[in-house]
Amino acid sequence: MRAVVMRNKQLVVDTVPDPEPGPGEAIVKTLACGICGSDLHALKFADKMVESARECDVPFNLDPSQDVVMGHEFCVEVLDYGPGTEGAVKPGQRAVSMPLLFRTSGILGVGYSNEVPGGYGELMVLNASLLLAVPNGLATPHAAMTEPMAVGLHAVEKARLEPGEAAMVFGCGPVGLAVIAALKLKGVEPIVASDFSPMRRALAQTMGAHVVVDPRERRLIDAYREVADLRPAAVFECVGVPGVLQDVMRQAPRNAKIVVAGVCMEDDTIRPMLGINKELSVQFVLGYNPMEFADTLTALADGRIDVAPLVTSTVGVDGVPQAFKDLASPDKYAKILVEPWRS
Amino acid sequence: MRAVVMRNKQLVVDTVPDPEPGPGEAIVKTLACGICGSDLHALKFADKMVESARECDVPFNLDPSQDVVMGHEFCVEVLDYGPGTEGAVKPGQRAVSMPLLFRTSGILGVGYSNEVPGGYGELMVLNASLLLAVPNGLATPHAAMTEPMAVGLHAVEKARLEPGEAAMVFGCGPVGLAVIAALKLKGVEPIVASDFSPMRRALAQTMGAHVVVDPRERRLIDAYREVADLRPAAVFECVGVPGVLQDVMRQAPRNAKIVVAGVCMEDDTIRPMLGINKELSVQFVLGYNPMEFADTLTALADGRIDVAPLVTSTVGVDGVPQAFKDLASPDKYAKILVEPWRS
Repeated sequence: MRAVVMRNKQLVVDTVPDPEPGPGEAIVKTLACGICGSDLHALKFADKMVESARECDVPFNLDPSQDVVMGHEFCVEVLDYGPGTEGAVKPGQRAVSMPLLFRTSGILGVGYSNEVPGGYGELMVLNASLLLAVPNGLATPHAAMTEPMAVGLHAVEKARLEPGEAAMVFGCGPVGLAVIAALKLKGVEPIVASDFSPMRRALAQTMGAHVVVDPRERRLIDAYREVADLRPAAVFECVGVPGVLQDVMRQAPRNAKIVVAGVCMEDDTIRPMLGINKELSVQFVLGYNPMEFADTLTALADGRIDVAPLVTSTVGVDGVPQAFKDLASPDKYAKILVEPWRS
Repeated sequence: MRAVVMRNKQLVVDTVPDPEPGPGEAIVKTLACGICGSDLHALKFADKMVESARECDVPFNLDPSQDVVMGHEFCVEVLDYGPGTEGAVKPGQRAVSMPLLFRTSGILGVGYSNEVPGGYGELMVLNASLLLAVPNGLATPHAAMTEPMAVGLHAVEKARLEPGEAAMVFGCGPVGLAVIAALKLKGVEPIVASDFSPMRRALAQTMGAHVVVDPRERRLIDAYREVADLRPAAVFECVGVPGVLQDVMRQAPRNAKIVVAGVCMEDDTIRPMLGINKELSVQFVLGYNPMEFADTLTALADGRIDVAPLVTSTVGVDGVPQAFKDLASPDKYAKILVEPWRS
């Protein structure tokens, strides 16, 4: 099959062997797969990601010196099942799945594995038991947004919001926008967000932010105070570069819950006295649980989260290397989807 | 009156004016006052403490270039009340109070104020409404431990322990020992603690730690795993020097709640990926609330917390400068109390 392969820190389009479904697995056709910021990270810093995961005993058995077909935000069509396997989703039907493959040999990250391909290839193998049928009528590109939007829902769940709490969102990239959508889903208001990019600020408003600011012009906390006064705040760090957590801690109101959803791969400096004097809590988050993933799909299907504005373009496999470059300019693209079957 | 005065970053014993109680205030005789690690910090880093507090809008109106009589862990005898004031604690009775003085001009920190003296002097003024009578029979030196032990109770409350959770305590100085006492009060087990000092490790066991380790010989997490296996952990950082939080994050089990009770005055470096991959939460804490303060006094009075082993010596005002030096060697002293009325 054709696939985009990460090889020697480059993306190349190549023909790779078709994956073979084992018992309990389905072979599926990738209909659409989103390009995630983590993939951009991985292309540059795969070694570091592997090292970080190893440091925490996270199963992430990736050898960056070997081929990897990335892609973990997908909507698929079920083609067939492996030996002795029958799944609830019939062949010909569409499905989504958490990007994990449980095998007797261990857990694989679909899209971050040398053993099985991710969604930047035409075919994948997935656990039959993890497939969730796409409810009728939900467009394929929107179903492919289940995974990134589940990240936002999880971050919001981890904030354990209480009635009366409002929210501040630092950064309106894909993670920040998913957080905003989840906050809106929960009825939180006001949602006050900041980003340098005008397009991202506009998207933040479309997704549910009540107030947006350009951090060059105004501090987020000042905009927050104006509309939320002294209401307690859940504060979401959705940028993930060194120095941002410190700034978030400086701006956070007393007793704020900070949720770190941005993925900062480098060491970072904080000033503990800011946390101590204001009794801040900092909750780091990763991924989502199966319930949150399923709830996100339902919210997309019944229209409570509308992701249409987030999908800014689609490409075939040949367009992926350029799409990775394009995503570096935050004022033109939000989510780019790969359609590997496109000629 | 005689008092130990912080003047030009030195401690000097001097005669200072007696404080005068205003309306709503009591004049009290300091019976005993503990020397706190924060006072050792303040002697060196008062400027930095003021700067940190200002950065967070914490009311901490201290001018380090002017005289300060420190001391905020006290047990007092009520002498009299200010104009038109009657208090529930009768003159001649003993009392404790949170070290705060609410005046119409603002909130003062007793022991960190240029306006009123703390417990390193013979006399203080305190809010009549904040005085808590020392229950009969609780020895004065132990009543003076209410404040530092309340710090431990608050840290444990902020961990929001759930049934089945066990605890790891990094550092068995005064804060760590107070945390251990509060964990024991809550029935948490096992409590696994570490400290470089043999005396502190012995005190930790006396106060309720089930297992103690020397971090030069064994990682705390390894000792924890042996007795608590995979049980969820509340993890207390009670050291407060740069690098420790990072080490705590590295050792913390997945999903651990880290409570930062150690006061690190300097900037610190963390590795966010450790937090992200393990979904850690980091709760910074400061002080206690009035309920926790009162609960601590009750727990001391009814014997549920026994602080007798923690009070290792007492001094008069003349002995305070040497006591500050002695406290730098963690293997000889735990809590030193000042008795300002001693000749």
